[in-house]
Order: sequence, then structure tokens, then C-alpha cells
Amino acid sequence: MSLTDLLLGKPLATSEEHSEQIGASSGVAIFGLDGLSSAAYGPEAALTLLLPLGFAGIEHIVPITAAIIGLLLIVFVSYRQTIDAYPNGGGSYTVATENLGVSAGLLAAAALMIDYVLTAAVGISAGVGALISAVPTLQPHTLSLCLGILAVLTLINLRGVRDTGLIILVPTYLFIGSLLLLIGLGLFHTIVAGGHPHAVIHPPKLPGATEALSFWLLLKVFSSGCTAMTGVEAVSNGANAFREPRAPTAKKTLTVIIATLVALLAGIAFLCRAYNVGATDPNSPHYQSVLSELLQAVTGRGIFYWVAMSSILLVLALSANTAFAGFPRVLRVIALNGYLPRVFTLRGRRLLYSWGVYLLVLLTAMLLLIFRGVTDRLIPLYAIGAFLAFTLSQAGMVEHWRKNPGKGSRFKMLVNGIGAFATGITTLVVLVTKFVSGAWVTALLIPLLIMVMVMVHHHYERVRREISTDAPLDTTGLLEPFVIVPIDRWSRISEKALRLAMVMSSEVQAVHVMAEEDGQQVTICDEWEQMVVTPLRAANRPVPELVTLSSPFRFVLLPMVKHVLEQEKRYADRHIAVLVPELVVKHWYENLLHNQRGNLLKLLLLVRGNQRIFVINIPWYL
Amino acid sequence: MSLTDLLLGKPLATSEEHSEQIGASSGVAIFGLDGLSSAAYGPEAALTLLLPLGFAGIEHIVPITAAIIGLLLIVFVSYRQTIDAYPNGGGSYTVATENLGVSAGLLAAAALMIDYVLTAAVGISAGVGALISAVPTLQPHTLSLCLGILAVLTLINLRGVRDTGLIILVPTYLFIGSLLLLIGLGLFHTIVAGGHPHAVIHPPKLPGATEALSFWLLLKVFSSGCTAMTGVEAVSNGANAFREPRAPTAKKTLTVIIATLVALLAGIAFLCRAYNVGATDPNSPHYQSVLSELLQAVTGRGIFYWVAMSSILLVLALSANTAFAGFPRVLRVIALNGYLPRVFTLRGRRLLYSWGVYLLVLLTAMLLLIFRGVTDRLIPLYAIGAFLAFTLSQAGMVEHWRKNPGKGSRFKMLVNGIGAFATGITTLVVLVTKFVSGAWVTALLIPLLIMVMVMVHHHYERVRREISTDAPLDTTGLLEPFVIVPIDRWSRISEKALRLAMVMSSEVQAVHVMAEEDGQQVTICDEWEQMVVTPLRAANRPVPELVTLSSPFRFVLLPMVKHVLEQEKRYADRHIAVLVPELVVKHWYENLLHNQRGNLLKLLLLVRGNQRIFVINIPWYL
Repeated sequence: MSLTDLLLGKPLATSEEHSEQIGASSGVAIFGLDGLSSAAYGPEAALTLLLPLGFAGIEHIVPITAAIIGLLLIVFVSYRQTIDAYPNGGGSYTVATENLGVSAGLLAAAALMIDYVLTAAVGISAGVGALISAVPTLQPHTLSLCLGILAVLTLINLRGVRDTGLIILVPTYLFIGSLLLLIGLGLFHTIVAGGHPHAVIHPPKLPGATEALSFWLLLKVFSSGCTAMTGVEAVSNGANAFREPRAPTAKKTLTVIIATLVALLAGIAFLCRAYNVGATDPNSPHYQSVLSELLQAVTGRGIFYWVAMSSILLVLALSANTAFAGFPRVLRVIALNGYLPRVFTLRGRRLLYSWGVYLLVLLTAMLLLIFRGVTDRLIPLYAIGAFLAFTLSQAGMVEHWRKNPGKGSRFKMLVNGIGAFATGITTLVVLVTKFVSGAWVTALLIPLLIMVMVMVHHHYERVRREISTDAPLDTTGLLEPFVIVPIDRWSRISEKALRLAMVMSSEVQAVHVMAEEDGQQVTICDEWEQMVVTPLRAANRPVPELVTLSSPFRFVLLPMVKHVLEQEKRYADRHIAVLVPELVVKHWYENLLHNQRGNLLKLLLLVRGNQRIFVINIPWYL
Repeated sequence: MSLTDLLLGKPLATSEEHSEQIGASSGVAIFGLDGLSSAAYGPEAALTLLLPLGFAGIEHIVPITAAIIGLLLIVFVSYRQTIDAYPNGGGSYTVATENLGVSAGLLAAAALMIDYVLTAAVGISAGVGALISAVPTLQPHTLSLCLGILAVLTLINLRGVRDTGLIILVPTYLFIGSLLLLIGLGLFHTIVAGGHPHAVIHPPKLPGATEALSFWLLLKVFSSGCTAMTGVEAVSNGANAFREPRAPTAKKTLTVIIATLVALLAGIAFLCRAYNVGATDPNSPHYQSVLSELLQAVTGRGIFYWVAMSSILLVLALSANTAFAGFPRVLRVIALNGYLPRVFTLRGRRLLYSWGVYLLVLLTAMLLLIFRGVTDRLIPLYAIGAFLAFTLSQAGMVEHWRKNPGKGSRFKMLVNGIGAFATGITTLVVLVTKFVSGAWVTALLIPLLIMVMVMVHHHYERVRREISTDAPLDTTGLLEPFVIVPIDRWSRISEKALRLAMVMSSEVQAVHVMAEEDGQQVTICDEWEQMVVTPLRAANRPVPELVTLSSPFRFVLLPMVKHVLEQEKRYADRHIAVLVPELVVKHWYENLLHNQRGNLLKLLLLVRGNQRIFVINIPWYL
């Protein structure tokens, strides 16, 4: 068993694909982690913006959460419909392309790609950030911790989809379980206490109000809270990873994820109001996360607190994993349409789209390095991509129902229309409120990515037009190539090259460049006469011509290339073959002892040559 | 005129060699700079070691300098004899090899290589060190200044030998002129004042004696002072750069260099005693160089002081240039004997041994980076190489006279014997006194270098034995190759490949690997029938066989390579040609859009293939 096998698992045959496909319970962990972990920061983001309203602000979290849940349910219904319509995956990109055209599809593609990379970077940095809040001594190692987690995630994912599911199953269900238990306990205490439960540890007092309630503020709170929705598109994007019957399994998974997320969001909002838990200033040294406050209020600082907090940290970091599952699949779909390099459609030894994983790791590492692993600096770039994709997907579904009218299609169109409008507004609000602090980067990247994709497509189309043909093999004008054999001095290598040239064509020309250093001039002509001409005459065979080129500037390759191009002009109806002998050494460092003229000649002929010149590489094994 | 031409000069033809050869006046600057600049640190090194004797120590500088001059004259006479015996250059390496055998030659070679690299590094760092003594604010930029000077020297040298001479002529003659003027003025004042001249600016008082005179101390002083002799072998190493009549021109150059150096050393020693100038502690903040003290004592701190000091700084930095002239030439001679890669024997566009220059620049930059450009840390590694080379050269000359007896050969043998003995002792003293502080590095590097050279030679010998042949062309068994054409789907490229295969052999086999992703399975067999078999049957030509290979693990290349190796076994008397089509794109980044299977296949075939498998590279230009 090799090290590679040990680290990455044995290669899987294409026929083993079935067993790599997943069911609903693994699916919840693999595709739901990102969406579910949003519960750990979505409500907090909303409560933080409500801080200026003071104690009164907490009251507003319930209606706002209700609005978010409403929007979430609309998106949920829309995506269930999408899975039915597109059971092979593709999500926003496929829906937008098929219903709104290529441009909208590329816009969705760019948005999704940015969203996924940011999901990975934000997930990792938020996890590390939370860890550092708990263990402040780790602060100086932020970036190393981020990159370390990225490395571990990469290794886990390169083992393939099924293994990934098994590894992340435990923390995900621990996270769901402990938060649901928290909510259940809190509800029980609240009901027992008649709506006013007694906190085990009281949450910190809120500062007085500094601002009055305004529609603009509520809109901002709503759009901040909407970060809780990022990641719910993963299931429909990756639907083809599910076991047959595919669509029902995928829809079941999505339902479980959304139901859990709704329960978490609703429960957290309800308990915040019941226990009077508000956000704390993230810039203050006494900062504490809302979930930590809630846990302390309901259960105190016991073992349960630490288990729940650990699962939150772990799930935040692992939420990046959703990007590992979704990003390569999105790239694959785009690449299948010819808008990204074809390498993203290839599956590696463990049946996953390896190159997509590599690109994700590279881009995430770059983001983490540029922003030094600090979540706050990454957040303003985030969410726009996700909401742009939501908007395009739902606008696409509106068009889908218009094109495919049927029973209930008018109602479905209305639902999707409301969704498209709401997420579209959210996209605009996020863009406007976060433009200066970083959203401009995303706004700039999207057109850039679209341009790249268009150029890639253009290139592939050009190549396809140029090389594809419906004509059968042309059997006319099959002429032997004119073979040129560069020769330095008589050796076993030149003998081998000459023999091969003579069996491949009856027209062979040996070429010698006179560029020897003074005192070393070899009289190739004498050797040629004795070693080649005499035996060939004796065997009554045609004798190749010997051409010697002089080189006043001691260059060997340029005169050779010039000569080849001249011969190409001379024999306008022939192919010109150049035999390049090459020493093959046992160890790479032995190459340092031999000049790389052979390789350079091949390169020069490739760069300056044309359709009718080709190279025959004669290896000589030492 | 291209940028390369502007920076490096136009390429020179081999026939222009004559005009690149130099006369005695340029030779003094090019090959003498290192030896002459030693006058700026040799006497100072001796005086520093005399410091513990206090005021009385200065007295001893005159007899010790006399001893050094005596040794220098012996070395001078020896090298004059060497130039006569070996007018084409090679110095210690050639002399030791021809007279003492290969092992002694390799020892000399290793010593010379180390010596030259250290000459470059020490010259540059000493120059920068002196500059920083004058302008202390430059201190933080030591390393950058060192690397900057290295870059300038590289550029100057890549223009070629003659241009180099012109550029360094001025500072060298300014240095010689101002030091000789200083000595002349000092002598004049001393004679006028009856042996006790009045100093314009008094040198600092010397501390009291802390140690008594001992033979061991004098030996150390002598060997430290001997650093003034480094660099005098450059002329005989590079003798073939001189204009004809070569030997007389070279000897004239050597005479001028040695005479000047003797005058400088004697003058400095005499004036030091006359003006009571001793060294100052190099670790004290009031450190001042001996030459600076002398200049102030004789002429004060006027314009002459600054001109002389500038020329000293410049010449120290430029003394590295001797290494640029000598190192590539030494490498060339060693490489001609097959002990170093052959690339060192090639001359570049400006007729110099470019690769030697590149290696020197690389090694010098590494040394400067490792030792942060501080001379003090480099010095202990230095001098051993030079004296080891002297010793071997002179021991070789002793053997030379023994082998070639003639008029005066016994006397010459005696002179060389004394030289060999004296320099041998010096080598040992330097090694012992500086072993712990850095000489061990050199002592370790020398056997390592010898090992590398022996291995290089071994490799070349093996290759030569394997590929050289005295047998003429074998005209029997000339069989057509068996040609394999990998085919993906029918396209213009596969058509071109197939047509070329068919003209080169009558036995062609097309191979298709079934590794397509699900849903994309191409029925190559149908296409083959329609596009290839039908037209060939119609034209009454042989039809190539189509082989399809299945690939359960989706690998494309490994089954192909396996198949090629199987065919090779099947046709034991044939060569197997594999046609590898390759897309040639206009811009490098377009390569990212195409898989590199062609290149990988070539690489795999090279690594896993053998003497009877070769690759035909079919380019397709987009």
C-alpha cells in the first residue's frame, strides 16, 4: 500500500460510482453544513445591527426572523421545484442558462464561483476566530491555523465524497443535537416559568438606545440576518451526487436541512427575547457570541456548554466543506458547456473532480493569505454572490413556468417571482451598504470572470471549428517525408538515427553545423565517407546527402533551424521530419552534464516551425 | 538594436577573437587588480596582529614585509617560468596535473575554484566595508550594496574581456598612481627631515604592550601579511587571453604587477615605521585603516586624501573582477579534461565562457547572502585556497625541472623548492590558526569538490565508452518501424497523424482508450469504419488495425503506455514509433485550456520505454 493510497484511499473504478453516491443522512452533513452553520452567525449579525436601539431592539428580532424564515421557505419551495426540473444538478447556473440565456447563466456562474470560494474562506476563518475567542493565546497563530484547517479539509476531500460524509457526520449532528436540546430546554423553562424564565447566568446588560427605529435600519438588519441563508443552494447544485431515486432523495435532504435551519432560527429568536439576550459589541474586549450567552443563560457553564461550543467551532470550520462539495461540481457543469478549461470535467482516482478541488484550495489559500485569516475583512465580499445566484435562479424559474405552463404553474410563478424580487432587493441592499468596505471587489470580479469564461469559450469554439471534420481520410498525395538528421560526429547514436531515418524515407539528409571551438574541428566529411558512404555503396543502397553549415557566431541551433525552414520551402509538397537524438539518463542531475541542445531544438522547431515540420525523438538510454 | 545588444554588446564572431585579446597595459588592470588591491589589506592584517606588542611592534613590520617580498619574488620567478612552460594558461591546475598527476591536479582545481569565488566575495564585501567606514549611514544597506556591485560587475563582464579592461583601467591606474605618489611624498619628507618626518595629522597613539615577542606570533604575522600575495597567479592562469607574442606579453604584465606590488608593500612598511603608524583595533569605534592614517599623516585631509581613498574603495570592489576573468578560464580547462560539465567550455555571444560567469555570480551571491556581506566572516575561509594552489604549482615545477633537466634547471628547481616549502608552511599555518573560525569550511569543501569532479569524469567516460564506435553503419536488418497512433476521435489532427504514419510504415495500428465520462461515450468504431476503412479500401491500400483499450480507472495514459510496451515485446526485432499529436497555441496561457496528455505521454514513454521505442511529435498549429 503506497503512501498515496494510505492518504487518499485506493483508486476507484468508474463502475464503483454507485457506491460513492450518497443518501439523505450523509447529504444533510455534506450539503447542509454551510446552511446550518449560518445559524451560528446570522441571528447574531442581525442583533448586532439592532444594538443602537438598546433593550427595545431585542423585541424586533422575532418579526425579522419571521421575515427571514418566510423568505427561506420561498427559496426552499423554489429549489424543490428546481430539483424536480433539473435532477442532474447545476443549480442557479443551469436554471439561469436554460431559461434566461447564456449571459444570465454566466452571471450566475461568476456569482456562484465567488460565493463558494468565500464560503470556504469565511467558514475557516470564522471557525478559527471562534476558537481564538475561546483560547485567546492562539491569537498570533491565526493564519497558520486557517491554513492548517484548509490542509486537513483538502486531505479529507481528496479521499472522495463518501469518506467525507462519514468524517463530518458526527460534528454536524452534534451541532444540530446540542442546539435543538438548548432550544427544547429553554422552551420548557419558559413555559414552566410562564414566559419569564430565570437565567442561570444573566446575559450582560444592554446599553441605552442611541438611535430611533427606521425603515432603513430594519432593512439593513433584515439583509444582515439573511447571511443565515447562504449555502442553501448546495443541494440543488450537487443533486447528481445522490443515490437513485435521485430527485426524491435530494428533496428529502433539502427538506431536512431547511426544517432544521428554520427550527434553529426560530428557537434562537424566541429564546433571545425570552431571556433578553442581545448582541455584544464585537469590538469590545467583553465580546461574547449570542449562542454562548444563550447557552450560559439556559444551562450555565457546565459540560453541556463546552460540548455545544466545541461543536459550533467545529461546524463553522467544517462549513467550508460545503464549498469542497459544491465548487468542483459547478466548475464541471460550466466546463461541460465549454466556458471553463475541460480539465474540470475529469474525475480523479477517487471519482471526484480533482482539479476543481485544487483550484478551490489555491484560491482559498490566497484569500486567507491576503486577508490574514480575519473574518471581518472577508465578510463584505460575501453574500452578494449567494444572493445574486438566488435571484437569477428564481428569475429563471419564473421564466421556466412561463415556458412550461401547466397545473399550478401560475401560482409557482408567483412564488418564484416574490422570491426573485425579495432576494434581488437583498442583493442590492448588501451591495449598497457594503460597497465601500469590500463589496466593490466582488462587483469588479464578476465581470472579469465573465470575460474570462467568454474568452475560454471563444477559444474552444475556434479549436473545434479548426480541427473537426466530416470528411473521410484523404488517401491522395501520400508522399514520404523528407528526413533531416542533425549529426555532430559518428557515434552509436548517429548510427541509430541514420538507420531509423533510412527506413522511414528514401530521402534522408544529414546536417552538420561547424561550430566547434578552435583546435577541436572534427573532420566529419572523412568520417562520413568511411562510416556511411562506403558501407551503403557496398550494400547497394541510396546514400544520404551530407550538408555542412558554417556558424561564425558559434550558435549551433539557429543555423540548423534556418536550414530546416529552407528545406521546408524547397519541398512545398512534402513533410519535413527532423530526427532529434536525446540521451536518457538514469538520474535527473546527470542532465546537468549534457547540453540540452536536443530539447532546445525541439522547442525552436515548435515555435518557428509550421504544419509541415515535425520532430522524431530518438532516445538513447545510457 | 535590441536591449540585449545594448546591455551586452553585439555578438562577436569566432574570427573576431584576435581583437578581443589584450596587451600588457590592459592586462595589468584585468589580471593585476586582485593582487595589487591586496596591498590595501595585507600590511594592515600584519600590523593588526602586531598590536599586542604595542609601539615596539611597528619596528617588526619592515623585516616581515621584507620576508613577504622575498617570498613574493620567489613566487614571481616561479610563475615566469610557468608562463614560459605553459603559454596557453592553466596555472596551478595544469602544472600540478601534468607533473604530479591527476589527484594533485584535482586538489589544485578545487583550491583554485574556492579561491576565486572567495576573491569575488571578499573583494566586494571589503569594498563595501570600506565605503561604509567612510559613510556610516550606509551601514543598514550592506547586503544590498554588495549585491548591487555584483550585478554591475556581472554586466560589465558579460560585455567581454576587452570592454572590461577599458572600464577598470582608470580606477586601477588612479589607485597605483595615488599610492605611489603618497610613498614618494613620504620618502621625500622623511629624507628632508633626516629620517624623522613631521606628520600633518598625527596617527592615534598605540596602546602599551600586552604580550612579548615570540616566534609563533611572528609566524602568524607573516602568514597574515601573506594575504597581500593572493591573486598573483591570475596572469599565468589566463595567459591565453594575451595578444601574440603571448608568453612575453604575459611575463611583461606579471613583472609590472609584481614590481608595483613590491613597491607598494615596501613603501607602506617603510612609511609606517617612519611615521609611527600602527593598526587600530578593528572592533573599536575609532577604527581607521592603515592607509587612511598614512594618507592623513603625509598629506592631511585634503582633496588628495579623498581621491586616494575613493580609488582604494573602487579598486577593492573591482578586485572581484579578477575572479570574473580567472574563474571561467579555470573551469574551462578543467571541463576540457572532462572533470566538469562540458558547458563550461562553450563561449557565448561575446566570446567569453558565459556559464563560468553565471556560476561565479551564483556562488558569490550565495556567499554574500549567507555571510550578510561582512568581510570579517569571509576572511577565515580565504587564503587557504590560494596558498594550496601556490604550493601545488611550485611543487609541480620542481617535478617539471626534474623531468626536463637542462641548463640551470637545478637552480630553478631549488628556487621552486624553496617556494613550495614556504607556501606549504604558510598554508598549514593559515589552516591551523583559522581552523575553528571558518577554515574548516574550506577544508571540507575541497574533498567534496574533488569527489564531484571525479564523479563527473566517471560519467563522461561511461557515456563515451557507450556511444563511441569505430564500426561503420550497419546496413543489415533495416526494418520499417511498427507505428502506433493514439486516437481520441476523428478530427483533422487524427487524419494528419494517420497519413504520416502510413507513409512512414506499412504497419500502422490506431489505439483508442475508452475512458470517457458517462454519457459521452463516442462510438469510435463506427467513425473508424466510415472515415478510414471505407476510403482506404476504395483506394486499394492496406487498412490499419484499430485497437480499443478499456480503462476502468479512467486513466488514459497508463493503458496506452502498457499497450506500447506489450507491442514492443511482441515485435522483438522492430522499432516501435508512437505518434503523439500536439496542439501548438499562439499564447502560452492557451495551454491551460488543453490537457497536457501529449506531453505526459512523451514523458512516460521516455521514462518507461527503452532503446526500441521512439516518439514522433506531430504539431498542429492553431
